[in-house]
Amino acid sequence: MAADPDCLFCKIVAGQIPSTRVYEDERTIAFMDINPGTRGHLLVIPREHAKDLLEIDPEDLAACARTAQLLAQRAKDKLNADGINLINSCGPKAWQTVFHFHIHVIPRYDGDPLRLPWQPAPGDRDEIAQAAELLSA
Amino acid sequence: MAADPDCLFCKIVAGQIPSTRVYEDERTIAFMDINPGTRGHLLVIPREHAKDLLEIDPEDLAACARTAQLLAQRAKDKLNADGINLINSCGPKAWQTVFHFHIHVIPRYDGDPLRLPWQPAPGDRDEIAQAAELLSA
Repeated sequence: MAADPDCLFCKIVAGQIPSTRVYEDERTIAFMDINPGTRGHLLVIPREHAKDLLEIDPEDLAACARTAQLLAQRAKDKLNADGINLINSCGPKAWQTVFHFHIHVIPRYDGDPLRLPWQPAPGDRDEIAQAAELLSA
Repeated sequence: MAADPDCLFCKIVAGQIPSTRVYEDERTIAFMDINPGTRGHLLVIPREHAKDLLEIDPEDLAACARTAQLLAQRAKDKLNADGINLINSCGPKAWQTVFHFHIHVIPRYDGDPLRLPWQPAPGDRDEIAQAAELLSA
């Protein structure tokens, strides 16, 4: 499987950097965003390295979309989310900052302050861990 | 094919309401957003009615993702976009306003003013038509 030795998310796929995984299958993994926009914010990525939307294998893209759908349902069921946003950023001018394709799955709650672009800031680790536990079920 | 007689996008699928289509295949169609966030902003939808991300058939979801990828490439090639955002809004609390699943394909340009949520406002019809012609090729 193609991996980029300098890619943060490839290292997460390989387990060389820790992450809080909530789902994985043959093509995709999902883990918590450490700078969450809202409670339960997670990322879905392909195991195989692809820089962005223009480079990802269409089958991996389809697999990522299905994983995002599954986790959106869990966010609704387990976190009582009132809605979900899926966001992909392709290129620095579209707010991409890590160059391994990823879909943001952002649970939404009545009155939450999410605006885009948001200013990433570290989330509360306990809250992230608690949401991850619910999303893993 | 399931259609909702009260659904704006089902009427667009059926051709009962005009739209500027830039792509179609067996499962999906893509047409220009009449309130564009940026030049070339378009929507990808399944032909079959589904309210949102939680209800769409996974195969239709995968097909929509692939169509979005194809049109992202066209936006880069034909409109010289510097980047692309894909956005799906699931539920009113996540900014969904039309309840037929859709992916926003939003070309991005250096210095464009896009922020989310944006305030929808009618776009320039000539500019939309010109972008559509380029995206249809």
